[in-house]
Amino acid sequence: MTNITTDICIVGAGPVGLFAVFEAGLLKMRCHVVDALPAVGGQLSEIYPKKPIYDIPGYPEILAGDLVKNLEQQIAPFHPTFTLGERVEHLAKLDDGSFTVTTVDGTEIACKVVVIAGGLGSFEPRKPAIENLEKFEGRGVTYMVREPELFRDKRVVLAGGGDSALDWAIYLASLCKELTLVHRGTTFRGAPESAAKVTSMAEEDHIKLILKSNVTEVQGDDELRSVTVMVDNTTPYEIEADYFIPLFGLVPKLGPLENWGLELDKNAIVVNTEDYSTNIPGVYAIGDINTYPGKLKLILCGFHEAALMAQSAYNILNPGKKFILKYTTVNGIQELQSL
Amino acid sequence: MTNITTDICIVGAGPVGLFAVFEAGLLKMRCHVVDALPAVGGQLSEIYPKKPIYDIPGYPEILAGDLVKNLEQQIAPFHPTFTLGERVEHLAKLDDGSFTVTTVDGTEIACKVVVIAGGLGSFEPRKPAIENLEKFEGRGVTYMVREPELFRDKRVVLAGGGDSALDWAIYLASLCKELTLVHRGTTFRGAPESAAKVTSMAEEDHIKLILKSNVTEVQGDDELRSVTVMVDNTTPYEIEADYFIPLFGLVPKLGPLENWGLELDKNAIVVNTEDYSTNIPGVYAIGDINTYPGKLKLILCGFHEAALMAQSAYNILNPGKKFILKYTTVNGIQELQSL
Ligand SMILES: Cc1cc2nc3c(=O)[nH]c(=O)nc-3n(C[C@H](O)[C@H](O)[C@H](O)COP(=O)(O)OP(=O)(O)OC[C@H]3O[C@@H](n4cnc5c(N)ncnc54)[C@H](O)[C@@H]3O)c2cc1C
Ligand SMILES: Cc1cc2nc3c(=O)[nH]c(=O)nc-3n(C[C@H](O)[C@H](O)[C@H](O)COP(=O)(O)OP(=O)(O)OC[C@H]3O[C@@H](n4cnc5c(N)ncnc54)[C@H](O)[C@@H]3O)c2cc1C
Repeated sequence: MTNITTDICIVGAGPVGLFAVFEAGLLKMRCHVVDALPAVGGQLSEIYPKKPIYDIPGYPEILAGDLVKNLEQQIAPFHPTFTLGERVEHLAKLDDGSFTVTTVDGTEIACKVVVIAGGLGSFEPRKPAIENLEKFEGRGVTYMVREPELFRDKRVVLAGGGDSALDWAIYLASLCKELTLVHRGTTFRGAPESAAKVTSMAEEDHIKLILKSNVTEVQGDDELRSVTVMVDNTTPYEIEADYFIPLFGLVPKLGPLENWGLELDKNAIVVNTEDYSTNIPGVYAIGDINTYPGKLKLILCGFHEAALMAQSAYNILNPGKKFILKYTTVNGIQELQSL
Repeated sequence: MTNITTDICIVGAGPVGLFAVFEAGLLKMRCHVVDALPAVGGQLSEIYPKKPIYDIPGYPEILAGDLVKNLEQQIAPFHPTFTLGERVEHLAKLDDGSFTVTTVDGTEIACKVVVIAGGLGSFEPRKPAIENLEKFEGRGVTYMVREPELFRDKRVVLAGGGDSALDWAIYLASLCKELTLVHRGTTFRGAPESAAKVTSMAEEDHIKLILKSNVTEVQGDDELRSVTVMVDNTTPYEIEADYFIPLFGLVPKLGPLENWGLELDKNAIVVNTEDYSTNIPGVYAIGDINTYPGKLKLILCGFHEAALMAQSAYNILNPGKKFILKYTTVNGIQELQSL
């Protein structure tokens, strides 16, 4: 179990969570950032890293991935620390007004202020509607390939038609005893090169490719034993399998944040526009995850929200100290030493 | 007299007024921008074009002048039109709810929506505290050199120690019959090269340089005849002069906007944070010129305000039409044809 102590714990490393590190840093507040995903950038990294954005002020055009890189560079002087790949689960308010934030893996972050920059929520695998599926989770059913070696010499059934299904089919085929890729359509949504590669590997019998089909059932006792494939909505048949990996993309879920006692409105956290504070003193919500009259789910709006949040958080971290706004042009960036 | 018809008249071509053109353009609204200064960019162009800004999100560092250039490029697809070098004076609301905005030179802009992005107000010359000075304005006293030829073969007294005093002293010395530069200190605030040049021109008697001095009085009948110079706070003496040009920089003044019936609070316009509207329906205020609880006079805040303003302005220009937010990434930029 890891224990971290910081001024501000930021939940979510999307563009808004990242920029919050900068605004906090200008006011000499340290940040620790937690994200359920293994990389920073939120939707920009996960959904559209190679697509151009046109409405970032001062950038007539910028690739989403480049914006994330620039934000990382912009916050570097303030030495933020990160816990990536761990979803935040619990929030506890202590008697002295400070907080403990706990992740799914038990990492504990002690902080004075919590900033929720969770976007649309944490991304979770989209699960196919198969009865019993969850029963076999961790017993043969998994939604992510974390450790490919696990699948060496096993019989693996992959399902999906996007990039991750294609890429993992190609990669795992050389490792597994038998690799089957089940896809509901006849063409793939993923990169054409990958699709061509899968097709030729299927022709050479390195991959068993089953098109126009769905996995409809999973069987086993303690461990997964087989899956049932329905071809063209007509003929179901069974394939023996040690692992079944449905790769149908990720969907965002507000998830654990729903139980923190925050005032919600249609899956978003209600905030005061004066400082983007929530109904829990010391907890702020910025970016796509908040709502207020006039709210637009735009990156540039989250940046503004981060700036106003930081002023208010400063008062919590420095009670009684008067804050005077100084322009960065006049003052420059004064680096924070790392912890 | 020029007459212009547009959807939105933006008062102020600072960074926030410029970006408002972009947000309006995304929603297919045309803009005409008016600024009292001869160039766009507001404070960034007027006060610190060569200084770096560190808190523009996505730019670890950018020169103020470059940010202005990028914003100009970003709004170019929407073909905004400009009236520069004319201060906006009057606002009239017509019976049909539309507006006429009039400049000091009589240019009239007919529009449905007015967006005030006037920053700290329009920049006006800082006037020295000399009794009678205003009486001679236009009769020998002027605060700007617009037409250098006016000063050919005349006796001119300049006052000031910054770049414009130095630059005009150097330039006008070759034109005038006699050029005197009065400066209160012994060193100059302007560029060292210019200061060195003025000093050497003074040594060669091309410029009469009077240091540690102030102009304390102006004399004349209908026209200016002479100024009184007080050397080192002790010995006043008179210099004959056809022109006296104090060059003490520019100060921003809310000026004419004060009389538009807008709700004000300490020189700023009170707005509703839902859409940054003022108390006059159809008139918005964004950027440094507005105020609301939590307001920060930062460029990035003005960008957010421009985005929310545009959504609301859309409803005025397109009554009854439902607006659906589309990401620029998904939709790209659809150019507006120029008028
Ligand atoms: C295809 C597409 C195109 C777009 N184009 C534009 C555009 O042109 N302009 C524009 O302004 N916007 C655009 N957007 C919207 C923009 O991406 C979002 O406004 C932006 O990502 C919001 O940033 P954020 O930091 O608030 O949240 P996100 O980017 O959603 O990041 C939130 C992060 O929080 C993490 N998280 C959530 N809950 C938890 C938890 N419990 N524990 C740990 N981590 C958690 C998530 O994993 C995620 O990484 C687009 C979106 C999409 C999908
Ligand atoms: C030295 C300095 C350093 C700064 N550093 C930073 C920084 O690091 N980060 C940051 O975010 N901000 C910084 N700022 C503040 C930033 O410059 C302002 O927030 C920004 O300029 C506001 O933009 P604006 O478009 O609202 O107004 P402005 O830039 O002030 O532009 C307003 C324009 O409106 C025009 N105008 C006003 N009234 C009228 C009228 N009646 N008719 C016609 N035109 C009119 C003016 O001539 C002016 O051009 C700094 C400011 C200064 C002075």
